[in-house]
Amino acid sequence: MLNHGGDLDIIEKNYKIAKENIIDFSGNINPLGISNKLEKTIKDNLSVITTYPDKDYISLKEAISKYCNCDKNHIIVGNGATEIISLFIKNLSPRNAIIISPSYSEYERELKNNNCNINFFNLEEDDDFLLNIDKLINCINDKIDLIVLCNPNNPTGTAINNEQIKLILNKCKFLMIDETYAEFSSISENICATSLVNDYDNLFVIRGTSKFFGVPGIRLGYGICKNKTILDKINKHKDPWSVNSIANLIGITMFNDNEYIEKTKNLIFNQKLYIFEELSKIKNLKFYKTNSNFILCKILNNKTTSTKLFENLIKENILIRDAKNFPFLNDSFFRFCILSEKNNKLLIEKLKNILL
Amino acid sequence: MLNHGGDLDIIEKNYKIAKENIIDFSGNINPLGISNKLEKTIKDNLSVITTYPDKDYISLKEAISKYCNCDKNHIIVGNGATEIISLFIKNLSPRNAIIISPSYSEYERELKNNNCNINFFNLEEDDDFLLNIDKLINCINDKIDLIVLCNPNNPTGTAINNEQIKLILNKCKFLMIDETYAEFSSISENICATSLVNDYDNLFVIRGTSKFFGVPGIRLGYGICKNKTILDKINKHKDPWSVNSIANLIGITMFNDNEYIEKTKNLIFNQKLYIFEELSKIKNLKFYKTNSNFILCKILNNKTTSTKLFENLIKENILIRDAKNFPFLNDSFFRFCILSEKNNKLLIEKLKNILL
Repeated sequence: MLNHGGDLDIIEKNYKIAKENIIDFSGNINPLGISNKLEKTIKDNLSVITTYPDKDYISLKEAISKYCNCDKNHIIVGNGATEIISLFIKNLSPRNAIIISPSYSEYERELKNNNCNINFFNLEEDDDFLLNIDKLINCINDKIDLIVLCNPNNPTGTAINNEQIKLILNKCKFLMIDETYAEFSSISENICATSLVNDYDNLFVIRGTSKFFGVPGIRLGYGICKNKTILDKINKHKDPWSVNSIANLIGITMFNDNEYIEKTKNLIFNQKLYIFEELSKIKNLKFYKTNSNFILCKILNNKTTSTKLFENLIKENILIRDAKNFPFLNDSFFRFCILSEKNNKLLIEKLKNILL
Repeated sequence: MLNHGGDLDIIEKNYKIAKENIIDFSGNINPLGISNKLEKTIKDNLSVITTYPDKDYISLKEAISKYCNCDKNHIIVGNGATEIISLFIKNLSPRNAIIISPSYSEYERELKNNNCNINFFNLEEDDDFLLNIDKLINCINDKIDLIVLCNPNNPTGTAINNEQIKLILNKCKFLMIDETYAEFSSISENICATSLVNDYDNLFVIRGTSKFFGVPGIRLGYGICKNKTILDKINKHKDPWSVNSIANLIGITMFNDNEYIEKTKNLIFNQKLYIFEELSKIKNLKFYKTNSNFILCKILNNKTTSTKLFENLIKENILIRDAKNFPFLNDSFFRFCILSEKNNKLLIEKLKNILL
């Protein structure tokens, strides 16, 4: 079940709202759109579509290597993080895996497609959904071939740091970390495992570009790993050219676009401060400190349900994510992402009206 | 071994020729580039990259359905014909297959990756590489799960018609036809198996857009098949969104671009007549009548070798395909594709100089 904060076409149909009028707080996508620099680069180089992409993606891997400060030979590029997740799991072929949960549903789908037994390690509400490392490590035994972690985690926004990640790496056969949201964290250097790849042969880090760079349409993801056995296996089986020429061009440009990267980080940082402050004023609401660009909230005192809140807001063209369908959550939980100052203010105002 | 007529980067490096100066007769790509209409559509709609592609690709499938006159429910879209070939073979999981050979190397790679035993059915030089249907049918037995045919075939340019295709379909468990070059044929309505999909549950037709529409950079291919079991299996296992938003937009536009389609067909038809006439004048050369946009030639009387010819031409920035590495061919064979009138004249002149 794929759900990126609700399919806008379905919302359009069910609620009779033109798609372009929806203020989408559900998709976790950078609200800045694309930079003028990127737009110009694409328009000036449209002829890339008339040639095959470089099948070794040398320039793209160099750009990623610089951006992530990692060895370009440790990089695999693919058609969105989705292809990277799929390639890694297919070629590792784990028999037993642990998914830290609730999390993104794609890990489960892919593991099931590969006939893997899945154990869920539950993030506890009582722990504010923070990962209990000791407890996790106690669950790891010889039979577990893979631990799957989204860091920061979707939908909780919680993250563990590199010291904690090392504790897991020292105990497990393989750890896959999906860092789709890591660049939104104000302490990203402490939680990005890319710096550990050189030291750990059992680590596979996955990155997307859809959320942070705001380009889900281009389908560009990458994996970083030192393990030659798994890299060779993936390279042998992967389709060539799964990143198309436009995505290749965009990647090469945007990983170097420091102005856009800084602007995004500043926007998220400042708006997060504002939103935390305002949410603190709503007594019927609990929110979880996030390391990402989205915030998980819980409605208290049965003031309303996530579904009713969703219905109330969509009538005003505001789309949030009803989080009741995530495993281990219920209809008290909803999630929204950080958009522009203006839109964030609007949402806060509406939430206050409904919940205060 | 992927080879689309030689990797231009390698040629650039080995022969010290700037890539943009190479006249590429090896890639089999439509020389018209993209239409002004398509260019404008992309530039006016660049914002598609900020949203996910429609995961059901409804508009794209409708455009293909209209273009191919087939049921939209029989269509699967993917990241180039390469992904479609891979998805079909993975999900059919044939134990024994026959590849009509010499042909495109990707079929063999994918079948081997899936541990399939491969039998090659050899197109005979004595038959001018025309497929001997009776002989093929005699080779089909209960153990053969799949026949793989490229029609028109690369590198021979030979094609069989729908009546002959039916004879194979009536005998085999599954037939996969790669029609990458079918639209270049002046008798395409007689050789395109898309019209047979409705009647045959054991037919899987594959189409690309790289060659005919001249857009290898976008990675857009599609499969057409009626068999619900295989379609459901593919849909269950395929990555969502493997066609990105730009490729989706381009597909929707170009399948409806009748002016471009007609212009391409006319160019290829007229230039083929010219080239056939001129090649007939070169007595040390045999050429094979093609149903595609490329022509396989054989050097006679040991006048030179394909490798020497290649080396001679590349010094003048002209890149042809040395065909000696195709199975069952040797260093008398080379292949070139039809480009603009001006470039075709240039190549003919050079060939005459060397071979007359």
